[in-house]
Amino acid sequence: MADVCSDACAEPACFQPPHHASIPLTNDHALASELETALEETADRVTVALDALIPRPDGPESRLMSAMRYAALGGGKRMRPFLVVQAGRLLDVDERALLRVAAALECVHTYSLVHDDLPCMDDDDLRRGRPTVHRAYDEAMAVLAGDGLLALAFEIVCHADTHPDPRARSEVARRLAVAAGARGMVGGQAIDLESERLNVEVSVLTRMHRLKTGALITFACEAGAVMARAGDDVFSALNGFAHDLGLAYQIVDDILDAEGDEDALGKSVGKDAERGKSTFVTALGVDGAREQARLLAAQAKSHLDLFGERATLLTQVADYVLARRS
Amino acid sequence: MADVCSDACAEPACFQPPHHASIPLTNDHALASELETALEETADRVTVALDALIPRPDGPESRLMSAMRYAALGGGKRMRPFLVVQAGRLLDVDERALLRVAAALECVHTYSLVHDDLPCMDDDDLRRGRPTVHRAYDEAMAVLAGDGLLALAFEIVCHADTHPDPRARSEVARRLAVAAGARGMVGGQAIDLESERLNVEVSVLTRMHRLKTGALITFACEAGAVMARAGDDVFSALNGFAHDLGLAYQIVDDILDAEGDEDALGKSVGKDAERGKSTFVTALGVDGAREQARLLAAQAKSHLDLFGERATLLTQVADYVLARRS
Repeated sequence: MADVCSDACAEPACFQPPHHASIPLTNDHALASELETALEETADRVTVALDALIPRPDGPESRLMSAMRYAALGGGKRMRPFLVVQAGRLLDVDERALLRVAAALECVHTYSLVHDDLPCMDDDDLRRGRPTVHRAYDEAMAVLAGDGLLALAFEIVCHADTHPDPRARSEVARRLAVAAGARGMVGGQAIDLESERLNVEVSVLTRMHRLKTGALITFACEAGAVMARAGDDVFSALNGFAHDLGLAYQIVDDILDAEGDEDALGKSVGKDAERGKSTFVTALGVDGAREQARLLAAQAKSHLDLFGERATLLTQVADYVLARRS
Repeated sequence: MADVCSDACAEPACFQPPHHASIPLTNDHALASELETALEETADRVTVALDALIPRPDGPESRLMSAMRYAALGGGKRMRPFLVVQAGRLLDVDERALLRVAAALECVHTYSLVHDDLPCMDDDDLRRGRPTVHRAYDEAMAVLAGDGLLALAFEIVCHADTHPDPRARSEVARRLAVAAGARGMVGGQAIDLESERLNVEVSVLTRMHRLKTGALITFACEAGAVMARAGDDVFSALNGFAHDLGLAYQIVDDILDAEGDEDALGKSVGKDAERGKSTFVTALGVDGAREQARLLAAQAKSHLDLFGERATLLTQVADYVLARRS
């Protein structure tokens, strides 16, 4: 959350859009500040939880634990954990359960970044403003640290501390596995690899993002509903919100890669163009992509009408996703 | 199970020791043949289960599914699945539950081989007699195929089809995650990497193998007991058997790498010596390592006294592990 609004207002880290985004957002600084505070609070709590859950370096395998902690405790917006906590609160799910599932999800997200950054994948040197794991350690340790974080996620979810009802633990773990796997995030990454070779259509791009980013976001929004054993209307609303939010998020990612600020992002930019990859920017142009993201964010918010004012922070997330510069 | 006894007797695939093993084993061909038949039957059933459980190639991510299937359906002894099925049968666990857990465990084992073979890890070209996944596809797809298989394992275990009791599903998944993770297999692999740089002691070697190979073997032997909600005496017996069997298995692996037959093994040999790695052979000599494996196998069998004749096939596994040449 190092975002600082440099153009639209003088407040640090307000969520007014930067000039280049040119998207009308809220003018209510109090609301923006409420979201910021809530995001930071969840990020802090998740970091504390991860610190307690990832084994401390010890014994001859200590370098592995050290690499896992380097990857998972090195910052990040913790957007997915925030969605778990906020969507779960709509249904009065126990806070401890939400935090543990949020931490598990962040393990999965972090592992995917570590493997994605590998030389044989995106070959990135910089992540969250620091050297990537394979740069700070080595490639083999980066592969293993990712593997260890993925396994840890299921260890956390399936532990009795997460939820007293084993049906909730088992079903949350199953959905997390589907979201992380070949018909979810990993499938999306596989399409992403192919898209470097092919000039893919918007429909394939949409599928890629729905899997690569959308699957974990959908899991984040639905995990609380699983634990609350919510009805179809609740699942449908949260699923719709997650679907549109996830796609908007990814389109903004493409825009940021095309014209973002490396320092603000804490990672390399311009990689997509360099590799001739198909993105929403190459398919729709920057203005078209921005308009598409705006429509999706508005649609995302409308899914939450069911929850009324309780969902205010979640609707603000949609605005934030549009305005983000990192 | 392509093992063929070329020296000690004329029977194909009997389990008489090859000449170089010089370990006194059973002379009972009927028993050896019983084990062989049971191993083949389980291997076939697990392969059929994996074929049904791993998604078929479809859509723009089809190359990923193809790589996952190439890795998991390409043979292998299926020793860990066999242990799941046999140990579970001692406690009358439902066959379908055992087969699904066995298939999930094989997904974890297969993923670990795919990642272990990567250029940044062991850099192997050959596995189960065929090109390794990164050779047949590419490095990025090998990383993703491994990731997809690991996630799939938890999807399988946590599905209601595995066991009607969600407590059983959740606890089996949790134990699988611990066995696969940083305090299990991945931790052992991390020590293995370090051991290439250091001349490690036998105590560290033992810890490495207990984690790298032993953790999944222990899971295999205990999974049925978890589902049967067995008592401490049963867990203690199965844990003792698994511990000694796992270490014996790894010591024989070291011996095979030092003097094995590349064609019979279906993978490269001599890699350990080439890299100056510490192994039980470098630490104890070939004769010392062989004697240690023999003692461990005998000790493994003694843990099964509790089960009487029902455990005959499992005790034969200990003999098989000593005599194996692949």
